[in-house]
Amino acid sequence: MTTEPTTQTTPAIPAGAKWTRRHLLDVDELSPDEIELLMQTTDAMKEVLSRDVPRVPALRGRTIVTLFYEASTRTRASFELAGKALGADVINVAASGSSVEKGESLIDTVRTLQAVGADALIMRHGSSGAPYLVARHVQSSVINAGDGWHAHPTQALLDLYTMRAHLGDPSAGSGQALRGRKVVIVGDIAHSRVARSNIWALTTMGAEVTVCAPPTLLPAGMRPGQPRSEEPLAMPPVRVETDLDIAIQGADVVMALRLQKERMSHGLLPSTREYATLYQLTERRVAAAATGALVMHPGPMNEGVEIAPAVASSLQSVIEEQVTNGVAVRMAVLYLICRSRA
Amino acid sequence: MTTEPTTQTTPAIPAGAKWTRRHLLDVDELSPDEIELLMQTTDAMKEVLSRDVPRVPALRGRTIVTLFYEASTRTRASFELAGKALGADVINVAASGSSVEKGESLIDTVRTLQAVGADALIMRHGSSGAPYLVARHVQSSVINAGDGWHAHPTQALLDLYTMRAHLGDPSAGSGQALRGRKVVIVGDIAHSRVARSNIWALTTMGAEVTVCAPPTLLPAGMRPGQPRSEEPLAMPPVRVETDLDIAIQGADVVMALRLQKERMSHGLLPSTREYATLYQLTERRVAAAATGALVMHPGPMNEGVEIAPAVASSLQSVIEEQVTNGVAVRMAVLYLICRSRA
Amino acid sequence: MTTEPTTQTTPAIPAGAKWTRRHLLDVDELSPDEIELLMQTTDAMKEVLSRDVPRVPALRGRTIVTLFYEASTRTRASFELAGKALGADVINVAASGSSVEKGESLIDTVRTLQAVGADALIMRHGSSGAPYLVARHVQSSVINAGDGWHAHPTQALLDLYTMRAHLGDPSAGSGQALRGRKVVIVGDIAHSRVARSNIWALTTMGAEVTVCAPPTLLPAGMRPGQPRSEEPLAMPPVRVETDLDIAIQGADVVMALRLQKERMSHGLLPSTREYATLYQLTERRVAAAATGALVMHPGPMNEGVEIAPAVASSLQSVIEEQVTNGVAVRMAVLYLICRSRA
Repeated sequence: MTTEPTTQTTPAIPAGAKWTRRHLLDVDELSPDEIELLMQTTDAMKEVLSRDVPRVPALRGRTIVTLFYEASTRTRASFELAGKALGADVINVAASGSSVEKGESLIDTVRTLQAVGADALIMRHGSSGAPYLVARHVQSSVINAGDGWHAHPTQALLDLYTMRAHLGDPSAGSGQALRGRKVVIVGDIAHSRVARSNIWALTTMGAEVTVCAPPTLLPAGMRPGQPRSEEPLAMPPVRVETDLDIAIQGADVVMALRLQKERMSHGLLPSTREYATLYQLTERRVAAAATGALVMHPGPMNEGVEIAPAVASSLQSVIEEQVTNGVAVRMAVLYLICRSRA
Repeated sequence: MTTEPTTQTTPAIPAGAKWTRRHLLDVDELSPDEIELLMQTTDAMKEVLSRDVPRVPALRGRTIVTLFYEASTRTRASFELAGKALGADVINVAASGSSVEKGESLIDTVRTLQAVGADALIMRHGSSGAPYLVARHVQSSVINAGDGWHAHPTQALLDLYTMRAHLGDPSAGSGQALRGRKVVIVGDIAHSRVARSNIWALTTMGAEVTVCAPPTLLPAGMRPGQPRSEEPLAMPPVRVETDLDIAIQGADVVMALRLQKERMSHGLLPSTREYATLYQLTERRVAAAATGALVMHPGPMNEGVEIAPAVASSLQSVIEEQVTNGVAVRMAVLYLICRSRA
Repeated sequence: MTTEPTTQTTPAIPAGAKWTRRHLLDVDELSPDEIELLMQTTDAMKEVLSRDVPRVPALRGRTIVTLFYEASTRTRASFELAGKALGADVINVAASGSSVEKGESLIDTVRTLQAVGADALIMRHGSSGAPYLVARHVQSSVINAGDGWHAHPTQALLDLYTMRAHLGDPSAGSGQALRGRKVVIVGDIAHSRVARSNIWALTTMGAEVTVCAPPTLLPAGMRPGQPRSEEPLAMPPVRVETDLDIAIQGADVVMALRLQKERMSHGLLPSTREYATLYQLTERRVAAAATGALVMHPGPMNEGVEIAPAVASSLQSVIEEQVTNGVAVRMAVLYLICRSRA
């Protein structure tokens, strides 16, 4: 008797696994067991994507709507492909060219998309908390694809998955996969939804997180001499270090964040050049990390600013792997969420 | 012997039904029998949408193009989902980002889309009559998704379907479904394609229509003291009433229209506030309608202007149901039109 | 025993045919045998498109991304339908609304799309050579859908296919299909990627090409009295004629190019009216061509400028046929390229 894996029409999801959440709004709400289930489901989706015909009809008949109020290439395309790879119909709605231009409110828009038949709404919005507001008003599942400076949970999950694949102990129990691993996040922590969601995901999985930035780009509660209670968006405790050469010593993972150009015009930084001098991931600096340390970046990169081109394309860089894993992670999220609705 | 409804691959369309139109340009061209067939086909599509896998391959291999010269969320998404639910391929073309920006003429654009293989062209355009012009130049089916102040036939059909579901007599003959029902349409009648198409649909099905607006927002032929021959766009006779408190008495359906902000800047209204005072659907006013009267709105709503938030979300409101029915109605339109081409 | 052609699930591709290219960047790289294979594969795709259900699952599971940095209707829609007709998933990315707005570099964008899972990248870009740059940085197949003034290979291939269908000798060997046919290309040769790719395709297939334009719209190397070595983009030798009445005599094909309005503002032409007087395809002028000569235009047309409306819609015009053939040619390109990756 033979098995024929390529004719399989469903992903091999872990048996006995349970997912009960309707929405995915941030990582801070997920338990270690839930994150572990997401990681294992992502393993199953990676297997699907490795097939000759990398498609399964697991979500056939489901309607997924992407609702993006901010420009995006990778996240929108990644979710669109994830939905299509699972057999769902994907409808794209962008703020420009839609009724949003007529002044339609967010709630009216999402109620409309729900009424049209959206099983899942994947939304990106410039205001922190917008997906939470939406989730209170619709029966559709809401998946946060980035809200203001607040959260970007699928980015954190794909980062976690990528680290786990290289550094993780697969036999470790829930919440143990990255126990004791040192992760340094360098850049504009204060305004980064990627940093915030990563800090939650990494600490939940046992990693030791260091954030590194000039004081003006640290959240209020992390700045030297300021009480933590000033922090408007809660975060678990992390090590804070303003000197990258100190922060990077012995790190297992170094993640650079994109430097938004508007930080300079708002007076938070004197110049891109000064930032690059002090905080760019250079070959010399990465050499101070642990042997074989991973270099990561959520993209899009400003090569020559927060990361040197040679580092971005080095053997230690897993930046493209992050993007590739993004499709599988988003398949896992869509699969678990849409299946839990059935 | 068992039946297996969920494995059914075609909708249960009324036997002996006949549809011969290539285009759907407005409701005024439809006979009572044709509207009745559309309503019954919509019933069949509602059944499809209630299945576990709400999809049928009825239009597999057909190409449907949405061509929108004006912004839209609900109408475009609704048609896109309707096409996909029937197994068609849907291609979206928006005026921005297309060759329209290079100054390509409408006729050149639609001839191109026909030559590319469009079976049906779903078009929205700012100029009244544009779809008629197009229909004279292409073999593709043309479905009007809104043209200027002129017509929006699928909106009228979904409104009709929603009223018929709540108020209609299913055993009534063609053109009898809404016989004697009182429908009040409140708002900017002069510039509303929704109002115009609804008036045609409702009078064809036997309803008694009252329009209610300040004189400046009534079509020329409906203004007190002006001859009807001034009216540039023909309409069947309706009752005209400028006082909403009088108009609404005993109504079975009250439909509010969206107030476009540009009406104020064009001097047709002194202020949004004055309009709201006189014409907003409030709880007090709706209480003067018949018991259980339906509250409707084509969306997107300006809550607090033409409709009070409490009314929009009241038990009498069928506003979200209108949107949901929109998908089924558009499936019916696409199905009948594309099948008649075969 | 009966055959059931409509249940056939693969196109009837020429046996023993070989395609080894990963990319399609321009026609100048194609051998006569490769062009012949493309033409025969297009024949097979035309047969698919003539079926009741004009779809085959030949590229099921493949992901095709359109990446357009310039506006387009026909080319983007044509590629999208070609991909869908072969069962591929098609994801559209436009420069506006994507991370390109954030200043993401071209290479970062395409590496991202590759990492997301793009098997083929169909790209249009304003800079000549951009697809070559991309092809050096990605494993995905790159298909040039127009780059600056340089090349538009699928347009040239669909033009070639259309001419071959009307004028070609099907029993002729490779590179002989248009042997001795006279083709006149009229218009802004200097700034036309369509002209450039057509000149390569036509001369490869044995046609005799004449280009006709005012001296200011001829490439440097073609201007009277200037050495050919001035030409920045290489082209095979063609006959150059600035007088359309002379150029058109005895032509088998007359192809008008779109006149871009910015040529006037840049001082290359005194006025649209003067251009039309001297270079418009009029009925009188076309009458000087060979009996039954084909009239072609890549679209979108400026009717009344480079072509008279009566000529555009005459029996000799194959302009809409060009568009229709575009879908089949693009199916052939996608099929051969994606299959060669397997």
